[in-house]
Amino acid sequence: MDAARTAVAEKPPSLDALIALAAPDMAAVDGLIRQHMDSPVPVIPALADHLIAGSAKRLRPLLTVAAARLAGARDDACLKLAAAVEFIHTATLLHDDVVDSSELRRGRVAAHLIWGAPSSVLVGDFLFARAFELMVGAGSMPALEILARASRVIAEGEVLQLTRAHDLDLSEELYLEIIKAKTAELFAAAAESGAVSAGASTEGRRALRRYGQDVGIAFQLVDDALDYSGESAGLGKNPGDDFREGKATLPLLTVMARTPNEREFWIRTVDRREQTGADFERTRELMRQTGAVDSTLDLAARYAESAKAALADLPAGPWRTGLVELADFAVRRRA
Amino acid sequence: MDAARTAVAEKPPSLDALIALAAPDMAAVDGLIRQHMDSPVPVIPALADHLIAGSAKRLRPLLTVAAARLAGARDDACLKLAAAVEFIHTATLLHDDVVDSSELRRGRVAAHLIWGAPSSVLVGDFLFARAFELMVGAGSMPALEILARASRVIAEGEVLQLTRAHDLDLSEELYLEIIKAKTAELFAAAAESGAVSAGASTEGRRALRRYGQDVGIAFQLVDDALDYSGESAGLGKNPGDDFREGKATLPLLTVMARTPNEREFWIRTVDRREQTGADFERTRELMRQTGAVDSTLDLAARYAESAKAALADLPAGPWRTGLVELADFAVRRRA
Repeated sequence: MDAARTAVAEKPPSLDALIALAAPDMAAVDGLIRQHMDSPVPVIPALADHLIAGSAKRLRPLLTVAAARLAGARDDACLKLAAAVEFIHTATLLHDDVVDSSELRRGRVAAHLIWGAPSSVLVGDFLFARAFELMVGAGSMPALEILARASRVIAEGEVLQLTRAHDLDLSEELYLEIIKAKTAELFAAAAESGAVSAGASTEGRRALRRYGQDVGIAFQLVDDALDYSGESAGLGKNPGDDFREGKATLPLLTVMARTPNEREFWIRTVDRREQTGADFERTRELMRQTGAVDSTLDLAARYAESAKAALADLPAGPWRTGLVELADFAVRRRA
Repeated sequence: MDAARTAVAEKPPSLDALIALAAPDMAAVDGLIRQHMDSPVPVIPALADHLIAGSAKRLRPLLTVAAARLAGARDDACLKLAAAVEFIHTATLLHDDVVDSSELRRGRVAAHLIWGAPSSVLVGDFLFARAFELMVGAGSMPALEILARASRVIAEGEVLQLTRAHDLDLSEELYLEIIKAKTAELFAAAAESGAVSAGASTEGRRALRRYGQDVGIAFQLVDDALDYSGESAGLGKNPGDDFREGKATLPLLTVMARTPNEREFWIRTVDRREQTGADFERTRELMRQTGAVDSTLDLAARYAESAKAALADLPAGPWRTGLVELADFAVRRRA
């Protein structure tokens, strides 16, 4: 584990090596995605393509492929699972954007603003069903069990977030429970289902699940931090969206806990969502003064270290190195 | 087959015998439904219960159980599939009501008007995922394949209906294609998955699939007719909803085709949906004059006969008699 960690500590985090290593597999996954988003009903491929074409990194299916190869996969059973993972993710994004009335996704106008919320809901259902057709095609009942459970846990996490999102007194514990369910569960299931499809041992399967979960938590923490610290247009969404929606993410929960004298400001802007143009900038300033974003990023870094530690007993080599780099990338990315 | 048909021709259609026969199985299915709609997130069981408690007949899971027993099922593998079928159905109802902005469902205020559209979308996702967890629990990959495909076909049918719903020139052929996908596919898959879980022969499986599809088409045709002919409050929805939404169902397509002189009336009321209080009554009067509702019910009766004919080579006995009665009930029900 220490060796694996040291091996990449000297390089700036980059996904280039992993992406090159996985390129043939990911090209096949892309083919499966294109093939299965097709439908005789024209709005379905049009809407699906709008969202899927905007996805450059495809981190979750990449995780399925890398976990399967690291666990010794010699056949291509993992490719259909990887495509299914991307479809589950895309379906949840479509429904999320309807639920949150988001305007931007992956740097493009959100699909529901072009095709309407009804189409987004139904095409999400289509992609979700397609995901299960792909899983059936992969032929692994244990992988189906993992991804069916993950789909249910994600929905529970989304409902929990919906009902508690504007809660000024949300505990850090409950916040972590929400992001474990709505984000990290799919990372965990992506890695675990890849491992299972490769016939991994129970230990290998558990290790890759824990890796996926910890990377997923780190990824969401950084996402939540970038909504306040992001400077670039590369975010693919509007910075400040979480604040405008009054979403109680960790940077906000942290700054609120550290500024008890500002309680009235938080009640107005977060609880009642009565915001003026200057409120977001003032929040960023309070975050700088209290180190709220840095604390969030520190926690993300600890989860990334934990993710890397989970790989210790898996075979050293380019796939393990790639996953170590993926964990580093998750916390040091700027968009 | 003729024997099976004659056996019930003398009695008014009733589901009582089938319901009594299936009572122990359906009690177990109900237990599975209760157990699997539970969640630590309180709004989920509350919203799910609102809709599921309103379902008196549970025709689709009943179809799964009856098909499995008729195909010789001795174990209880079909019960989890039956619960899964009801969850898929409930999930699509939740999403449908959001898509159509419906006000009533199963005689109750639609869930999205109580808990909001976002909760309805997400709890629908939860139930859909739960359906797949139940299918995994049933352990039959062929049944999973049938129901995953059905879920995808249903979504395609819903999108097709959404994009063509207000089309005055919708052909009867395309209308039938839509209801085959959005309604009959789940009836077909419910019966076929039950048969498969019982180890039915290819012929038995095909026969029960065809039975389910034809009953499903008949059921939807009657539903569409009742929206114009329904007199009672027992419909569980507002009569005239389809007309107010400008939904091009068969009774409306038929009356429009038979009243070419009324083209301006149809363009205003259906295409542009500019309706006055008297328009629905005038439409019902035009339907009475042209026999549009009766034509729809005649077509439903032909599909019910075709459904019964599909059962000819299956073993005679109380389960087959029950399915014959179910086909008759589908067309002669009044609500």
